[in-house]
Amino acid sequence: MLVSAAVVFSSLLSCAVAGPHARLKSPKNWAKKTALMEVLAAASPPSNSTTFSPVAVAPKANIFISLTDDEAASVISFLHNQTELNLTAAADAGAWDNAIEVVDLVQPNKTDALEYLDNGGAVPDRFAVARIAFGATDEPYLQDFIVGPLPISNSSTYASLDWATTSGSAKIRNHNADEDLLTQWNLDVTATVADIILDLLNGTATGSDDDDFDIWGETLLPQGLFFKSDITGRDSSKWQLQGWLYGDVFYSTTEEFRQAWSSPDFVKYDLNLPSSWIGSDQTGDFFPGDNIAPPIAVQPNGQRFSVDEEQKYVEWMDFSFYITFTRDTGLRLFDIKYKGDRIIYELGLQEAIAHYAGLDPVQSATSYMDTFYGFGPYAFELVPGFDCPTYSHFLNATFHAAEVSTTHRNNICLFESDPGYLMQRHSSSNYLALTKNIVFTLRSVSTVGNYDYSFDYVFALDGSIETIVRASGYIQSAFYAKNNDYGYQVHDALSGSMHDHALNWKVDMDILGTENTFVKHKIVPVQVKYPWSNNTRSTMQLQRERVENEDDAKLYWPRNGADMFLVENSDQPNKYGEPRGYKIAPSRGGAGMHLTIQNSSVLLKSQGFATHGLYITKQKDTEVRASHANNDYDPGHPLIDFDAFFDSESLNQTDIVLWLNLGMHHVPHTGDLPNTVFTTAQSAFIISPHNYLLNDASRATRQMVRIDYNSSGVQLVKEFGGKMPSGMVNLTAIQPNFNNYEGDIATRKFPYDPLHPYNDTESIV
Amino acid sequence: MLVSAAVVFSSLLSCAVAGPHARLKSPKNWAKKTALMEVLAAASPPSNSTTFSPVAVAPKANIFISLTDDEAASVISFLHNQTELNLTAAADAGAWDNAIEVVDLVQPNKTDALEYLDNGGAVPDRFAVARIAFGATDEPYLQDFIVGPLPISNSSTYASLDWATTSGSAKIRNHNADEDLLTQWNLDVTATVADIILDLLNGTATGSDDDDFDIWGETLLPQGLFFKSDITGRDSSKWQLQGWLYGDVFYSTTEEFRQAWSSPDFVKYDLNLPSSWIGSDQTGDFFPGDNIAPPIAVQPNGQRFSVDEEQKYVEWMDFSFYITFTRDTGLRLFDIKYKGDRIIYELGLQEAIAHYAGLDPVQSATSYMDTFYGFGPYAFELVPGFDCPTYSHFLNATFHAAEVSTTHRNNICLFESDPGYLMQRHSSSNYLALTKNIVFTLRSVSTVGNYDYSFDYVFALDGSIETIVRASGYIQSAFYAKNNDYGYQVHDALSGSMHDHALNWKVDMDILGTENTFVKHKIVPVQVKYPWSNNTRSTMQLQRERVENEDDAKLYWPRNGADMFLVENSDQPNKYGEPRGYKIAPSRGGAGMHLTIQNSSVLLKSQGFATHGLYITKQKDTEVRASHANNDYDPGHPLIDFDAFFDSESLNQTDIVLWLNLGMHHVPHTGDLPNTVFTTAQSAFIISPHNYLLNDASRATRQMVRIDYNSSGVQLVKEFGGKMPSGMVNLTAIQPNFNNYEGDIATRKFPYDPLHPYNDTESIV
Repeated sequence: MLVSAAVVFSSLLSCAVAGPHARLKSPKNWAKKTALMEVLAAASPPSNSTTFSPVAVAPKANIFISLTDDEAASVISFLHNQTELNLTAAADAGAWDNAIEVVDLVQPNKTDALEYLDNGGAVPDRFAVARIAFGATDEPYLQDFIVGPLPISNSSTYASLDWATTSGSAKIRNHNADEDLLTQWNLDVTATVADIILDLLNGTATGSDDDDFDIWGETLLPQGLFFKSDITGRDSSKWQLQGWLYGDVFYSTTEEFRQAWSSPDFVKYDLNLPSSWIGSDQTGDFFPGDNIAPPIAVQPNGQRFSVDEEQKYVEWMDFSFYITFTRDTGLRLFDIKYKGDRIIYELGLQEAIAHYAGLDPVQSATSYMDTFYGFGPYAFELVPGFDCPTYSHFLNATFHAAEVSTTHRNNICLFESDPGYLMQRHSSSNYLALTKNIVFTLRSVSTVGNYDYSFDYVFALDGSIETIVRASGYIQSAFYAKNNDYGYQVHDALSGSMHDHALNWKVDMDILGTENTFVKHKIVPVQVKYPWSNNTRSTMQLQRERVENEDDAKLYWPRNGADMFLVENSDQPNKYGEPRGYKIAPSRGGAGMHLTIQNSSVLLKSQGFATHGLYITKQKDTEVRASHANNDYDPGHPLIDFDAFFDSESLNQTDIVLWLNLGMHHVPHTGDLPNTVFTTAQSAFIISPHNYLLNDASRATRQMVRIDYNSSGVQLVKEFGGKMPSGMVNLTAIQPNFNNYEGDIATRKFPYDPLHPYNDTESIV
Repeated sequence: MLVSAAVVFSSLLSCAVAGPHARLKSPKNWAKKTALMEVLAAASPPSNSTTFSPVAVAPKANIFISLTDDEAASVISFLHNQTELNLTAAADAGAWDNAIEVVDLVQPNKTDALEYLDNGGAVPDRFAVARIAFGATDEPYLQDFIVGPLPISNSSTYASLDWATTSGSAKIRNHNADEDLLTQWNLDVTATVADIILDLLNGTATGSDDDDFDIWGETLLPQGLFFKSDITGRDSSKWQLQGWLYGDVFYSTTEEFRQAWSSPDFVKYDLNLPSSWIGSDQTGDFFPGDNIAPPIAVQPNGQRFSVDEEQKYVEWMDFSFYITFTRDTGLRLFDIKYKGDRIIYELGLQEAIAHYAGLDPVQSATSYMDTFYGFGPYAFELVPGFDCPTYSHFLNATFHAAEVSTTHRNNICLFESDPGYLMQRHSSSNYLALTKNIVFTLRSVSTVGNYDYSFDYVFALDGSIETIVRASGYIQSAFYAKNNDYGYQVHDALSGSMHDHALNWKVDMDILGTENTFVKHKIVPVQVKYPWSNNTRSTMQLQRERVENEDDAKLYWPRNGADMFLVENSDQPNKYGEPRGYKIAPSRGGAGMHLTIQNSSVLLKSQGFATHGLYITKQKDTEVRASHANNDYDPGHPLIDFDAFFDSESLNQTDIVLWLNLGMHHVPHTGDLPNTVFTTAQSAFIISPHNYLLNDASRATRQMVRIDYNSSGVQLVKEFGGKMPSGMVNLTAIQPNFNNYEGDIATRKFPYDPLHPYNDTESIV
C-alpha cells in the first residue's frame, strides 16, 4: 500500500525548553500509595443519623466492573502462551516486536446483561479485549482480540474482535511504528540546516541534552519552522525530505531554502521566547481581602449517600448506578435507576476530538481523537479542597496497559453539594415555600497532554441528570506569522490556534423498558382562526413528530431551542395519556457542540459522530462504541466508522441509543494564557423527567420549609425533618495535607499527524 | 375611538377556592421590620484580616440611587399643588379620580452622568417621574410626568415625559378603568346561567363569600367556561354580552348556550378539582438519609467584599459597581468597573414577557409584560439558609407607589461562594496547579403573581459576569378539553398551558470608553489550498465581521455557537494588534431565549425587543428603555415601540447598547406540578474578557496551590497566602430563625386581556 498520500508533515521544529510541556522523564508510578484522605476520614465528624448507612450492598454483581489485576495477568499470560502471536514482553519490546498494549473488559452484551439484571438470568461470561501491536512485520498493525471466558481456563479461547468493528476486521495498519528511526531522521534532517536554525532561532536542535529546541508540535512555544518528510516504509534510508516551510513560504529542497535564507530580502520572524508568562503561578497585584479564607462547603453531619466500594455501586436518594473505568474512556456509568426503574443503561464518553486549523501543516493536520491516548491513564488523583470538596468520598480506579496494572488512588470523587440556588420557591399572600437544591456529583478529571478535562455527572432531586465537561490547562498554539485567519495573536510571536472540541457521549436510555421512541416536540408559530374570534390570530402550537428511522436520526440542536427532544415509551402513557419520557437538552455553554467542519481532511472517515449535535441509532450488541482508540492510526480506514451505524433501521418503539456531542469552538485569546479557565470552557446536557412521574419528584425531600404568615407576622414555620446543620465544625481538622499528594507522574501526548499517526504507547501506556 | 376590536374576552370563569392563588385580602405591610438577620450578624465569627474592611466608601455619589422617602413625598406634595392635575389622594381615589400611581427616579442622562463620573463635572440634577392615572374623564388614560429638579424648590417644574417615548406622547389610553363595574358585570352575566354553572361546575359564582368559584383567569384550577363581553366605554349599561364558550364550542347568545346545554348530546367535561396536589409541601416517601443535614457553605473568616450601605456601592476583588432599585424592573447595576475601567454602564432587566397560547381565549390572549405589575413591588425579603447562604450580606430596597414609600428589608443579598468547580487546573509530569473559582453573587427574587423569578449577577475572578434568571412557582394552566395542540394534560382536567418566556436585558457596555463596535467572529468551514500540500483541504477559518449599522443589528444566536459576538473598542488594540473587547454568549439553558411568535396578535407593537436573541442600538439619552410599564394598557399603541430605535444609525465606533433576551419555551409537564423547578427553568448569558487583558486575570488570586513532585513524592507545596479555612464554626449559632421572617404580603396579578388591558394598580402597588 502506498501511504505517501497520508504523509504530510511527520515532524516539525519547535521549542521545548523547560516549561509547562516538559516531556516525561520520570519513571511511572501510577500505583504509588497515598495517605492524603486518611487524615480527612479521621477528622470527619460522626454522622448524627442512627439509621442511615453510608455502605451500600449492590443488589447485583457489577458485571461492568473493570478487569481485576488477576484477570488482567491471566489474560496476558494466556496470550503469551499462544506461540503464533509471537509476543515479546512489553517491557522488552521494540519496534520490531509484537507486544500487548492494553487489556480491558469487553463490556457484556446488553442482551445478556439485561437477562441477568432483570430476569434472574446467569451472570454473563466475562471477556477481555487485548490490543496487540504487531511490529515484527514489514507492515506493522494493531489488532484487538477477545479473550475468555474469564477466569482463564481450558475452555478459554481468543479471536480477532472483528464483530465490534464496522470495517469487518479488528486490524488497523500502523504507518509509523518506528519512533526511534523517526527521532534520528528528524535530527539528521535538521543537522543539515544547523546554521540556519542558529540564525533564525538562536539555538540548536541536535538531540543533545543541552539543546535549546526540540522537534515537536504541541507546545506554547512553537517557532514556525517546519519540514516535510515522506517516511513511507520501515527503512529510513528510503525516507525522503520533501521540503521546508517558514513564514508560509514553501521550499521544496534544502538548497532552495538555504538560498532564500541567504538572500537579503529573506523575512525573519520574531522568536517566541519563554519567560514567566508560560507559568500558572500567582501573578499581579493581590486582591484586597483575598488573604482571608473564602467560603467553604462542609458536611457537618455525615455522608448521605451509600457506596458499595467493592462492587463500585452507588445509591443516592432515589438514584442508583454502577461505575466502571476503562483505559480508553475513563469513568463510565451503567444501569442508572431512578425510583427503581432503569432510565439509562449506559452513560459515558465515547471520544473527544480537538480539531485544529491553521496556516501551518501542524495545526492544519491536527485533530486529536483522545481515546488514542486514553482517558483512563490520565485520570489522576484528585485534590480535596480544590478538585472536590474536602468531605468527598473518593474511589480508586485501575487500568491495564503495557502489561502493567495501574491503580489511580482517589481519582474519582463523589459528593453532595448545594449549587447555590434553590430547587423550588413560591411566595403568596399567606405563605412562602422553599426547597433546597442538594445535588450529588460524580467527578473525574483527565489531563490528556495539554488539556485537563473535568467530567461531572450531577444528579438532582427532580430526577434530572446533568453531564458536564469543562476544560482547563494549556492551549496548543501556533507560530504567529500570518496566522490571522486561524486565531488571535496572543503573545509576542504566538497565535492561539483555533480549534473545535467535540466530545461524544453515549446515552443509552431505557424508559420503562427498552422499547422507546425519540420524539421532537416542536414549538411552532401558526396562524389560527378560532370559533370565538372573527380574526385569524398569530399564535403558536406544540407539534409532535416521531423520529422513526435511522435515515432521519442525525439531528442538529434547533436554533432558539425551538424543539424539545424526548425519549419516550409510547406504549406507556401516564394516566392522562401523555407518554412517559425524559427530555434531553443542552444546559451549559453555548459556544458550539459539534464540529464546524463536516468533511474534515484530517479526520476523514473517523468523524461521523461529531458532525451533528445528536444521533439516534437502534441498539445493537455489535455497535457498542462510536469510535475506536485505534481509529487514529488510520482515520481514512477506521475500525469503527460511526456513519455505518445508519442503515435505515426502524427506531419506532425499539431499543434506541443516543450519541450526543458536547464541546465548544475555541479561539484562544489572551485570557487563555497561561491556562484556559473552566468558567468559560464548559458544556453540558441535562436529561430530565418529562411527563414521567405525576408530579415534581423533589417534593419528597425533607430539605424544605414553609413559612405561613399574615399581617400579624409569622404564624407557623413548617419543617419536614430537614433541619439546618448544627454543632461545631473544626475547619482546621479537615484541612487537607497537600504534602500527601501522590504525585502521579503526568505523561503527555506527542505531536502527531492524524494523516500519518504513529504508535505512542511508550509514553501513554 | 372604537375599542371593540380590542375587546375579546374581558372576563372568564374559573375556580378560586383557597389554594396557591388565593387573592390578596390582607393589608399591605411592605415596610414591616424584621430582626431575622440580626441573629446572624451576632453569630458571625470575626474576620481574621487585620487590614480588610467590609465597609466601602463610594468614590462618587450614587447618582442612580432610588428616590428617598423625602424626595418621593416632596414630589407627591408638589404634584398635589398643581391644581390643573385635579389629583385625589391615592388612598381615596376611585375609578373616576386622578391619582398618582408611581413615583420613581428618572435615570440621569448618560451624557451628564459620565461628565460627573469621569470628568469632574457637576452632580446631575435629579428628576422624578410620576405616573398618573387620569380617571376623571370619559376617556381614561395614564401619563408620565417628569418633575424636578430635586429637591423640590421654586425652580422645580413638571412636564409630560414625552421625550422618553417613541410615540411622542407620554399618554396612553386606559380601556378598562372601571374594575368595580366589571366585577359587577361579570356577576350579572353569570347570574343568568347560575343553573348551568351549578350543573357543569357543581358550584356557584355569585360574588358571595361562600362562592365556590371566582371569575378569573390565572390559576391552577380553570374550569373551561368562558364568556365574551364588549365593555367599550365607561357606561356598563351599554356593555354587551357577545357569547359563551365551552368545550371549544362558541354560542353567540345565552339562549343558544342554554339550548345546547339542555340537549341530551351536550358534552360535559370533567371538573378540575383541588386537593393536596396543588400544595407544595413535602409529599411521597422520605429519601434515605435525608433526615441528615446536607452540606452547607460557611464563611468562617469574614466577608471579603465591601459595601457602602448608604450609597449602595459594592467592591469585590477587581470589580466595583453601584446598585439601584426601581418599581418597574427591580434591581439594576450601574457603572460596573473592572480593574478601574468601566466595562458596563448599565445592566438590568427591561421587560419580562410570558406569552401563552391555547385553544381558549384566555390562554390565547395572554401575554404578560411584567413591568406592568413591576418587579420592585414583588421583590420580597429573602430567607438566609435557603434563598441565599446564611452568611450573606443583605440590603434593603425601596419603591414608591400609590403614594406609599415601601421598603423591602433584606430583599437583595450579596455573597461569595464556591460554585463547586475550579477556575483553573493543570497537571504535568512534575507539578499540579489548581486555582479556586470563588464567585460573587448579587441576587434578588421577584414573585410576580404565579412565578418566582430569581435574578443573579455573578462576578468571577477571570473578569466575567454572568446574568442568570431562574423561574419557579406555579404555572398558569388551561382547562384540558381539546387543548392538546397547546400543551400536555398534566392533571385530571388540566392542561399545562404552553408559553414562551422572554426577558430582555439592557447591557450598555463601554469598553475603554464609549466608542465601541459590535463584531461577529465567525468560525466557518472553508476549502483551502496551502503551499505545502498538493491537495485542497477542508478546514475552517476565523472571519471577522463588523455590525456597523442598526439595519443589521437584530441578531439571532447562531446555531451551534458558530459566531462569537464581541463588543470591542476597535481603536484600542492590545500590544499584539487585537482590539480589546468582551465576548457575550449564552451560558445556561438552551430551551430558547426569544419568542417563537414574531408577529403576535396579543403583543402587537409592543414585542419588538423579544423577537430576536440580541439587538444593538446606538445609545441615546431618549432611548433608555426597551419597553414601558404602561405599554400593556394598549399594546397596539405603545409608549415605547422598540422597533422605532432602529433608524439606520451607524454603530461604528460609537456608544452602543445591547438588548439581550433570556428565557425559555415552556410546555409544562407533570413535573411542573405543583411548582416549576429552577433546575430546568434557567437561562443565562455571560460576558467575558476577550483579548481584553494580556493574560488570565484570575492569576492574581491567592486561592491557588501548586504541588511539585517527582518520583520520590511531593517536593514542594507552593501556596500564595490563600490558606484553607481554619478554626471552629458553630453551625448552631448561625442557624437562621425562620420565625423572624417579615412576611411581606404577596400580591398577585389579575387576569387581563392585553387587547383590552385594565388598570390593576389597586392590587399591585
